[in-house]
Amino acid sequence: MRIALAQINCHIGNFANNASVIRSQIASAKQAGAQLVVFPELAVCGYPPMDLLDSEDFIHKCEATINQLAEACHGITAIIGCPSRNTSLKGKNLFNSAFVIRDGKVTDVVHKTLLPTYDVFDEYRYFEPNSEFNFIHIDGLKVALTICEDLWNEEDDPMYKFSPLEKSDSESFDLIINIAASPFDYAHREKRLAILSRNAKKFKSPVVYVNHVGAQNDLIFDGGSMVISAEGGLTHESAYFSPALDIIDFPIDSKKTSPSTDSKYERIRKALVCGIRDYFEKCGFNDAVLGLSGGVDSALVAALATEALGPKRVHPVLMPSGFSSEHSIKDAIELCDHLGLSHSIIPIQDVFESFLKATEKSFEGKPFDIAEENIQSRTRGTILMAIANKHRYVLLNTSNKSELAVGYGTLYGDMAGGLSVIGDLYKTEVYALCEHINESKLIIPHNILSKVPSAELRPNQKDSDSLPEYEILDKILFHHIEERLGITDIVLKGFDEPTVAKTIRLVFSSEFKRFQFAPVLRVSTKAFGTGRRMPLVAKYQYSNGR
Amino acid sequence: MRIALAQINCHIGNFANNASVIRSQIASAKQAGAQLVVFPELAVCGYPPMDLLDSEDFIHKCEATINQLAEACHGITAIIGCPSRNTSLKGKNLFNSAFVIRDGKVTDVVHKTLLPTYDVFDEYRYFEPNSEFNFIHIDGLKVALTICEDLWNEEDDPMYKFSPLEKSDSESFDLIINIAASPFDYAHREKRLAILSRNAKKFKSPVVYVNHVGAQNDLIFDGGSMVISAEGGLTHESAYFSPALDIIDFPIDSKKTSPSTDSKYERIRKALVCGIRDYFEKCGFNDAVLGLSGGVDSALVAALATEALGPKRVHPVLMPSGFSSEHSIKDAIELCDHLGLSHSIIPIQDVFESFLKATEKSFEGKPFDIAEENIQSRTRGTILMAIANKHRYVLLNTSNKSELAVGYGTLYGDMAGGLSVIGDLYKTEVYALCEHINESKLIIPHNILSKVPSAELRPNQKDSDSLPEYEILDKILFHHIEERLGITDIVLKGFDEPTVAKTIRLVFSSEFKRFQFAPVLRVSTKAFGTGRRMPLVAKYQYSNGR
Repeated sequence: MRIALAQINCHIGNFANNASVIRSQIASAKQAGAQLVVFPELAVCGYPPMDLLDSEDFIHKCEATINQLAEACHGITAIIGCPSRNTSLKGKNLFNSAFVIRDGKVTDVVHKTLLPTYDVFDEYRYFEPNSEFNFIHIDGLKVALTICEDLWNEEDDPMYKFSPLEKSDSESFDLIINIAASPFDYAHREKRLAILSRNAKKFKSPVVYVNHVGAQNDLIFDGGSMVISAEGGLTHESAYFSPALDIIDFPIDSKKTSPSTDSKYERIRKALVCGIRDYFEKCGFNDAVLGLSGGVDSALVAALATEALGPKRVHPVLMPSGFSSEHSIKDAIELCDHLGLSHSIIPIQDVFESFLKATEKSFEGKPFDIAEENIQSRTRGTILMAIANKHRYVLLNTSNKSELAVGYGTLYGDMAGGLSVIGDLYKTEVYALCEHINESKLIIPHNILSKVPSAELRPNQKDSDSLPEYEILDKILFHHIEERLGITDIVLKGFDEPTVAKTIRLVFSSEFKRFQFAPVLRVSTKAFGTGRRMPLVAKYQYSNGR
Repeated sequence: MRIALAQINCHIGNFANNASVIRSQIASAKQAGAQLVVFPELAVCGYPPMDLLDSEDFIHKCEATINQLAEACHGITAIIGCPSRNTSLKGKNLFNSAFVIRDGKVTDVVHKTLLPTYDVFDEYRYFEPNSEFNFIHIDGLKVALTICEDLWNEEDDPMYKFSPLEKSDSESFDLIINIAASPFDYAHREKRLAILSRNAKKFKSPVVYVNHVGAQNDLIFDGGSMVISAEGGLTHESAYFSPALDIIDFPIDSKKTSPSTDSKYERIRKALVCGIRDYFEKCGFNDAVLGLSGGVDSALVAALATEALGPKRVHPVLMPSGFSSEHSIKDAIELCDHLGLSHSIIPIQDVFESFLKATEKSFEGKPFDIAEENIQSRTRGTILMAIANKHRYVLLNTSNKSELAVGYGTLYGDMAGGLSVIGDLYKTEVYALCEHINESKLIIPHNILSKVPSAELRPNQKDSDSLPEYEILDKILFHHIEERLGITDIVLKGFDEPTVAKTIRLVFSSEFKRFQFAPVLRVSTKAFGTGRRMPLVAKYQYSNGR
């Protein structure tokens, strides 16, 4: 049997678009001689549809679309992800299902058993888990049709009491098909390959895995659909970050393929470019505006946005104050030259002074402090939003994960913006990505990479006045955020106790800022946003010492 | 048996505080001659602990605290909610449990079976559902110990396949105890009473129900612990919005009690006052600042904040522009006089003009539009935040649910603030609550209630220039947001099709604004925030017509 892996870029709720893409891929697969074409999880409505699933109108459109696709599907079998109704009257109203369609009809509907409900996933919010797993038959093959998490019950610490294939592991079968919506993080490919390979070996069956590609909100789907032989070897790997329709033959040729070799930073670069491009395209936006400070964060965002949107659609604004160093302007202009961007310069000193005059009475007798620093940052935020409003641009946010973590940013100031591009990159990762981008061609001027980080909101300010050096800070943050460790365990790893305690206290006390922050393009296993949900009113102090 | 219902105000993560409250209530219950004292769900750590549950340190503190409480508990049985570990190695790592403690020991641990995972609830994110329900025995009574949702599997549309008591309904027992974390909405008391009463009658058993009181983040717990006779009658009802330790005797005296008679708006008033007070107290904040426009929204927030914090801790700022009507200032000052607040006045015209000058080149040849309107709003937001930063105040947001729904507000401008006080009240409800507050004493000046709503951001602007009249708009929004209806079904209820379509389009296109909005004190069944999760990049058009 010839099988087509249709790795497509869906758009949440855009049924006309998704159906048209699916229809054209069915036609191409047929033309290539395939007997089966496999689409990703919830391909009909896009993933994640979130609370749109609560709308009867939305579910009705899902049903109407899958029925239209079935009617138009002849001479080939298609497997397509789509929500379906739970008709039993008990449990949640919906299933997350895989529809098998052929010759004008839906021949089988298989429901997802394991519903990820952690990190960015909320599936049990909407779906009833399947309780009876059945094999399906396609052109004489006995197929275990599974949906994403169904294969992800980890052996050493299973999150679910049983997985569907384990329940039926006395039966043998010919092929595992897994349709997925498995979002990118920079280490996810290896984890995915290991899990699929383990399942192949355990059940002595090849695995055909088809994933989404393209970004939705904060989530970036990287594609990388795969075929694994019954021996667990990778025999096919689809492209990353671009749609693909790849044809393979069953029985699976067990010759191993050469795996994708992109480095961590090349993956992140592609992911963020995809994230920006799809956010603009799917929201119907054209141009981006951003503030260029002469620092490394905004320089990186400008470079990524230019790669995603082209230089004509990126509008940098330089907004020097009395505290800005001269090289800030010079460095930012050099960056614009490298990227082919035309910039504008709007000094903020007059607006800043008019704010100081307005608040003179209220501030009487009080020294210059964070209030005045924040006024500068919010003046810039207001100017950028005014330009965005006037010209229908979208403001790109340039905060990094380190400063978001410790609250080293101004709400409504430098924390403003419709999309956070690098909010899931620690400061040291920001530098590393800049160096990676510079490897092929000099984009980020050397001076931007070598100068001491500073917010430039008061004379001679340096980030290290308030924060530990980033090399230390970022490691502590990684242990706390990605690995969820408290003070005691981080200190045991060799860090200074007061520094760890201060860092975690800062993370805790800045939850309210992140609560109001833009969606963050997710590239790690634990990004700020929907995947990390913290109570704002909590009073919790981590133990320091056992 | 004498039973004490300990309706307490917990603080998330504040183990020292929670343990001390629990210990003192155990002592008081013993002194009152009780053999059993019942505390709410997750009382040890507070509800909802959210992703703090992912921290080993946090779970360790839960265990240490419950063990200390057990050691100190002698001569009385206590039932206390606390997370516990799932030691089976399969499934999620934790249970949401009720600990039974007595004479220095934990005698029983019962786990929650039905895990609410919808609206504001995310329990399956953290907890494994209980699969074996067992009765417990307390002083010779056979007790069905349940946790909140365990009794909430609705008869006509059950969200779960089975509920724990249904599984064991062949057995008879003496008493149902339900420990809860059941957040307020203005119609929740009646629903709660109906559900508890139905369970009592179905299982022919009295029900003792103990709820949290006090606010955590956006959620307000109203207390209202109850006792229901086996015949389904309400025999005891604890106070609303204040802690209580109420003593009842078993067998239950089946004499009905007179139920709480607070009106919808009296409940909302108490809830919002509780929400503000606890947000400040639990976060460790003292004073509030807010902008007073002379309109009804900010007037209501000022009145509620003054009731919650006292007039000395509320700092209103009047920020007139060239477009402000003269009566705006006059009305706002009259309100301050009624509330005993001292106000400050900071005109924004000079700052506004300095922004216009700064953006002159970028705006060249473009007419006055939303960009200039938003600059005014953001100037006010920046001034308010500067005052908050300088004096360590918290900015209270004054947006209402109608304007949040349709995006009639400025991100980082009038949408700024640390807590949204009335973001779950439609504009017509804002007026009704003002009228209710004025019933006992004139607080909100008549002129504020009778003037035509306007944002006053351009000459002679009225809300109705851009929006349907609020009487119509609010009904359409209620059908769409609370009842999740699409265009077709709302039009069938007698509304004009273009108005409905436009309204829903506005709701859709303003998701990105609400994504960055403050926590909203929840008083309805569907508030903006954690209970309503929408994709930002979705392109979805509701059908209009079948």
